[in-house]
Amino acid sequence: MTSSATNQIPVLVSGALGKMGSEVVKTIQQSTKFQLEAAIDTSPSHEDLDVGDVLGIGNLGVTVTSDLEGSLCAVSQKYRDSSVPNAPVLIDFTQPSVVYENTRSAIAYGIHPVIGTTGLTQDQIIDLSDFARKASIGGAIIPNFSVGIVLLQQAAAAASSFYENIELIESHHNQKKDAPSGTCLKTAELIEETGKKFNTSNVKEEELIEGCRGGLRQSGINIHSIRLPGIVARQEVIFGGVGETYVLSHNTVDRAAYMPGVKLVASKVRELTTLVYGLERLL
Amino acid sequence: MTSSATNQIPVLVSGALGKMGSEVVKTIQQSTKFQLEAAIDTSPSHEDLDVGDVLGIGNLGVTVTSDLEGSLCAVSQKYRDSSVPNAPVLIDFTQPSVVYENTRSAIAYGIHPVIGTTGLTQDQIIDLSDFARKASIGGAIIPNFSVGIVLLQQAAAAASSFYENIELIESHHNQKKDAPSGTCLKTAELIEETGKKFNTSNVKEEELIEGCRGGLRQSGINIHSIRLPGIVARQEVIFGGVGETYVLSHNTVDRAAYMPGVKLVASKVRELTTLVYGLERLL
Amino acid sequence: MTSSATNQIPVLVSGALGKMGSEVVKTIQQSTKFQLEAAIDTSPSHEDLDVGDVLGIGNLGVTVTSDLEGSLCAVSQKYRDSSVPNAPVLIDFTQPSVVYENTRSAIAYGIHPVIGTTGLTQDQIIDLSDFARKASIGGAIIPNFSVGIVLLQQAAAAASSFYENIELIESHHNQKKDAPSGTCLKTAELIEETGKKFNTSNVKEEELIEGCRGGLRQSGINIHSIRLPGIVARQEVIFGGVGETYVLSHNTVDRAAYMPGVKLVASKVRELTTLVYGLERLL
Amino acid sequence: MTSSATNQIPVLVSGALGKMGSEVVKTIQQSTKFQLEAAIDTSPSHEDLDVGDVLGIGNLGVTVTSDLEGSLCAVSQKYRDSSVPNAPVLIDFTQPSVVYENTRSAIAYGIHPVIGTTGLTQDQIIDLSDFARKASIGGAIIPNFSVGIVLLQQAAAAASSFYENIELIESHHNQKKDAPSGTCLKTAELIEETGKKFNTSNVKEEELIEGCRGGLRQSGINIHSIRLPGIVARQEVIFGGVGETYVLSHNTVDRAAYMPGVKLVASKVRELTTLVYGLERLL
Repeated sequence: MTSSATNQIPVLVSGALGKMGSEVVKTIQQSTKFQLEAAIDTSPSHEDLDVGDVLGIGNLGVTVTSDLEGSLCAVSQKYRDSSVPNAPVLIDFTQPSVVYENTRSAIAYGIHPVIGTTGLTQDQIIDLSDFARKASIGGAIIPNFSVGIVLLQQAAAAASSFYENIELIESHHNQKKDAPSGTCLKTAELIEETGKKFNTSNVKEEELIEGCRGGLRQSGINIHSIRLPGIVARQEVIFGGVGETYVLSHNTVDRAAYMPGVKLVASKVRELTTLVYGLERLL
Repeated sequence: MTSSATNQIPVLVSGALGKMGSEVVKTIQQSTKFQLEAAIDTSPSHEDLDVGDVLGIGNLGVTVTSDLEGSLCAVSQKYRDSSVPNAPVLIDFTQPSVVYENTRSAIAYGIHPVIGTTGLTQDQIIDLSDFARKASIGGAIIPNFSVGIVLLQQAAAAASSFYENIELIESHHNQKKDAPSGTCLKTAELIEETGKKFNTSNVKEEELIEGCRGGLRQSGINIHSIRLPGIVARQEVIFGGVGETYVLSHNTVDRAAYMPGVKLVASKVRELTTLVYGLERLL
Repeated sequence: MTSSATNQIPVLVSGALGKMGSEVVKTIQQSTKFQLEAAIDTSPSHEDLDVGDVLGIGNLGVTVTSDLEGSLCAVSQKYRDSSVPNAPVLIDFTQPSVVYENTRSAIAYGIHPVIGTTGLTQDQIIDLSDFARKASIGGAIIPNFSVGIVLLQQAAAAASSFYENIELIESHHNQKKDAPSGTCLKTAELIEETGKKFNTSNVKEEELIEGCRGGLRQSGINIHSIRLPGIVARQEVIFGGVGETYVLSHNTVDRAAYMPGVKLVASKVRELTTLVYGLERLL
Repeated sequence: MTSSATNQIPVLVSGALGKMGSEVVKTIQQSTKFQLEAAIDTSPSHEDLDVGDVLGIGNLGVTVTSDLEGSLCAVSQKYRDSSVPNAPVLIDFTQPSVVYENTRSAIAYGIHPVIGTTGLTQDQIIDLSDFARKASIGGAIIPNFSVGIVLLQQAAAAASSFYENIELIESHHNQKKDAPSGTCLKTAELIEETGKKFNTSNVKEEELIEGCRGGLRQSGINIHSIRLPGIVARQEVIFGGVGETYVLSHNTVDRAAYMPGVKLVASKVRELTTLVYGLERLL
């Protein structure tokens, strides 16, 4: 890894051998806007690859290390004394068990954390926010990097004050355990911020097969979860009015769909001085 | 009503003031293939129209009578002694309480019954079949006149031996009481004739909101029912395989969608000498 | 027609025998928020109904008159001297040949015009705007009363800065003459306000059948028009990104879909003192 | 590679380093029904892999050779003298320039060819058919291995005699050069075997943007081609009738979708004694 051009954003990727992490490594290498400084993975077991392996695209390969602390320290030092200031970013797709420590370490070294790992508790988020504000190091915790999903959720929230009837359908591959998906629940919550009751009708419905009318939220919104091979991730919000329906749908077929969001956050996080939560805060 | 051209099919419509019946009256009048002989309605209450009213299109208007027996008798007599044989047809969209008697009467008068009214019991159907066979008068009991739905059901049955994973979504207006729809249940039954178990997966699913995974059939098929204004009737069969989905969907937006099926049956029923059940038997 | 409750909005409907006009008459009668004051139709030919006929629902029937001027005068006078001010509204679904005069007359009588009739020229709109401002009588010219379409267009415009690839599909019944629809062109124009070029690709495409890639806008957006019976009006905006698609679709199956928009405008127009153009200005 | 269990089907894969070929190698290795005997690739340039590389899953890796003739000879000999007859299969995903020779060689060695490579001329197919019949070696030329697409095409052909109005939409990624896709043209041809004229309407249509009504077939069928990133391959057949639409759609999101078809053909081809064309012949 040679020194980056001064206008490139220096990036460290932790969880580099994971499904999302290895996609991020590839994305950062392919982009002229970013410079990959380190690829870290402390996870003991990965199917195909191991620490020390060379990861990457053709002759751009980068050696994966298990030393996060050392990497943060080295990259921090490299850019701290630069005449042209250039704040590095850590993109983390690791495990719930290590994400808190990783985030704290990044902030401590003056490196902006971009956290895609799930599992931070509410208390941990508050604690990290405090730490980031005191250190004046902006960071971002992003449960979902899909720009399309945020656009769908904003459009759904905007439409919900004009409709009295809404149902949601979310579809995923049949290896997914929980239903509905967290992203779909988030969409429902955003719609429910209107405070309205939906799907109120004077008809007394009867389910001939239990569950066929879907899962019912307190707000009256019905959620239906489809699980089939051949689907990656799909979400559909259906608004019904007299004589018309308005449908918002988002369909992901490849993990690459999240990369524009990752790049956008890795770029904007450096302008922040606090820790923000959610991609929608940075669009 | 003047005498029909000899190549036109004579038709009586019972339930002529109802939603489906009045659509049938209009359809028969507009078709050169058919001759409307009588419009009968014995139902005591109809919102807008009453027996004795003139029903129909412009100057084709026909007076509605409440005398089914008399109409059957008159039309029967008119064509019985004709040098050119021309068997009349009764199209019945009435009520469960009178449909059995109506059908028997038609057969007794040598008139081919086409029954769109629901509610005949299994015993009544057997009894009417016996009667029709003895009288050598073909007839048809048709729970759903949509040709498109039959095509969808046949395509779904054909595909079901090639897929292991299937889910059904049926959507109707929010004034519909029962879920899932009878038509959707029929589709599931046709798919299940393969005898296969569907949607078997080694993943232990968890419903965070009860019912979100839909209604579960013994065969493993999940059915989801959507109820929203702005939808008339819609059915969707989703087959999922590795890396692909195959979707059949049918969308009805107007009652006129059933008229091609009505005309098709009213035409073909005269070639029968027994009572058949289901539109699929006549395609 | 008896005197209205003071909190009801007085409404005149011109073009009352037309498809949209008669739907509006029915809607106004069914709503407790409005009071139908007059139903006017000067059109010489209507299939089923004629001036002097009683139009409406059951015993709410209203006699249709051909005297717009007289109706405006009478209703204006009735409310002008009221101790409780209550400004009347004229809802106009007539013909391009009379809409300018109708709008001018309404303003002259102090009645708020809500114009659904198409065909006003740019000059006529400027002229009417001047007149409305001088008279301090708010009005609205609304090419499309569908709230859902406006929501779709706003969501599409919002998403267009995040996507480089967009195609539009609009589907209508096969009796529609022009393609693409005006509403779809409006959607394209709103997306194009970003000033971006879309669908730029290094692939040299080849059309094996001329036209299969759709109609190409200067902006690079492709528009595809479907014309089939069984469809009323449908619009679909498809955004494509790496690994994902985001789709907005609106489906109208009945003219009743426009009534919430009509009621919304008829209510809000009374708070205006100028002439506004487009439903989006009033949401 | 050790000797196979007698009930496993011996398979050679040519084009093993290509996109489809390497997917086939993986599929054959994962299936207990098949035994991978050889992986051949004569193509001079492949991005990531080269002949001599070990290809495959974990310790199931197989060495790729460039000697097709030698591999056919060795595998042929291995099974010819077996007490339990077990006919090997060659699965070929190579190049137009070599596919004819590959197929001839396989037949000459008594090995059943399964040809996924496109580009065989009509004359070459006739020649290979003759050769296969004389040698009594069954084979299959399969332009599209998607079972789902064949099901869609059969359902479309079945429905086409009941509808007068049909439009097709096919959508692919924006790196595809030709439009419409060959698969979509095949669907149109199958529908056109009814000999009917479609989409006849008395309305004189006007295209405000040239091409927006799609590509027009002689039969009257309109075809619309969408090209967007985020879509792999999608086909939609829309039948429109009065008041209803019937839609068949197939959506491929991963090359793995073709593997069930490959396995099905590799299994059934051994029961044939002639060369068949098209997956539909083997379902």
